[in-house]
Amino acid sequence: MEVLKTIAEMRQARKASKKTMGFVPTMGYLHEGHISLVRQAREKNKLVAVSIFVNPTQFGPKEDFRTYPRDTKHDLSMLKPHTDFVFMPSDEEMYPEGYDSWVEVKGITDMLEGSARPGHFRGVSTVVLKLFNIVQPNRAYFGQKDAQQLAVIKKMVKDFDVNIDIVACPTVRESDGLAMSSRNTYLTPEQRRSAPVLYQSLQLAQELAKQGEWDALAIRKEMTKLIQKESQADIEYISIADNETLKEIHRIKYPALVSMAVRFGRTRLIDNLVLEE
Amino acid sequence: MEVLKTIAEMRQARKASKKTMGFVPTMGYLHEGHISLVRQAREKNKLVAVSIFVNPTQFGPKEDFRTYPRDTKHDLSMLKPHTDFVFMPSDEEMYPEGYDSWVEVKGITDMLEGSARPGHFRGVSTVVLKLFNIVQPNRAYFGQKDAQQLAVIKKMVKDFDVNIDIVACPTVRESDGLAMSSRNTYLTPEQRRSAPVLYQSLQLAQELAKQGEWDALAIRKEMTKLIQKESQADIEYISIADNETLKEIHRIKYPALVSMAVRFGRTRLIDNLVLEE
Repeated sequence: MEVLKTIAEMRQARKASKKTMGFVPTMGYLHEGHISLVRQAREKNKLVAVSIFVNPTQFGPKEDFRTYPRDTKHDLSMLKPHTDFVFMPSDEEMYPEGYDSWVEVKGITDMLEGSARPGHFRGVSTVVLKLFNIVQPNRAYFGQKDAQQLAVIKKMVKDFDVNIDIVACPTVRESDGLAMSSRNTYLTPEQRRSAPVLYQSLQLAQELAKQGEWDALAIRKEMTKLIQKESQADIEYISIADNETLKEIHRIKYPALVSMAVRFGRTRLIDNLVLEE
Repeated sequence: MEVLKTIAEMRQARKASKKTMGFVPTMGYLHEGHISLVRQAREKNKLVAVSIFVNPTQFGPKEDFRTYPRDTKHDLSMLKPHTDFVFMPSDEEMYPEGYDSWVEVKGITDMLEGSARPGHFRGVSTVVLKLFNIVQPNRAYFGQKDAQQLAVIKKMVKDFDVNIDIVACPTVRESDGLAMSSRNTYLTPEQRRSAPVLYQSLQLAQELAKQGEWDALAIRKEMTKLIQKESQADIEYISIADNETLKEIHRIKYPALVSMAVRFGRTRLIDNLVLEE
């Protein structure tokens, strides 16, 4: 495994081999969710590259950029069995003084995470385009956990004619259903015990839809009731939307994306499930 | 020479050979200025690709997209001696229904053409990024005539880590000094006789600076006086700016970009000259 800390080194490594490459962009503090992406990249490609870069431009001014958890040593030891190249650029090289070019994916960035975190997807799509241009993979792997991010990246790749296959990978969960996330580390023990209620509410939505409940508002109400039983949980949004346009729907129509953001104290968790026929 | 009318055909053609490729994006209605770009691409690369695409997204709602001159047959005959691939995509394939992703290069797009033509550079940078992703050249050639466009493309390529060399090529002029442009065809015979005053005013600026005139305002005044002698000429702006930031300067400091937009009736011409020590 080679660790490459500059753009020039990464370009050089890529230039040295024309083999198919799978790429997993991450912000580090890796967990089994990330490793499942890396494993899928490993299966389908001769080479696997992973980037570790806590991207400052996707954090809002009041968000957790500075305190976002970092543990490079542990990350590298997790990646070693599966990875050929780890790209770890500096903030200064990715965003030098005078940097001011941005990718704006419109429409599907207006709602949900985009509305709760203004500028977030501008930062995400910009850094992903930059990483794609540097790493030049054949395929790139993203988790379904960040459903809107996945939709935004897919749209950018389609609209900009980027010649890279975007592969969506299922959310990896703890045994009690909590979706794996680097931010889970922020939870107090009590919050951690409450957090599985997100996935429980998603399962409830699925169950209600299966039983023939067609009214999205009724499903949202049941989900809300369940989550509110946890005194620590503070719902930011619960959405039931068209899985492609991400527009809210009133009547269930498959495939539908049920997604949410819930705060536990200062920690904000997201989760989602796609309802399918 | 192969003419490729779909993105898939162009990708296939590029995939078939890994030779170095020079690329000249154009909106067609080619003149010697374009051909000089193609010749320079020919000299330095094994393969030469030219795109012909009148890009709707860089025209304002009141601009000349529909009437922009087109003559594909003549274009192809001009390209034939120099070109391997001509890429001519349709509007529908470049901007399918639901298209909504954009490149925003900030800062240097606020002034000059950017201020006179809101959204123009968003359209330019977006289509150029798309064309780069489809054609995948090693080098791309742009004329100095569109000085701000050149600066915007260079900035985008640098900021987005696009792995393509941008080559700037000198403005090609008619024997009386008028910069070649597809829009010159709009000029009435009388306007055409007046139009060389743009270049004359640029030469005057150069002469004054050489003689030690350090006051940009004084130079602009002399240029204005000269251009106003032509009754058909209607000055939109005359700018003397830092050649990199494009910010207006008060005292001449090299290299400085002297640029202008002047209307002759409904036809809008631009020209520029870089003052160097």
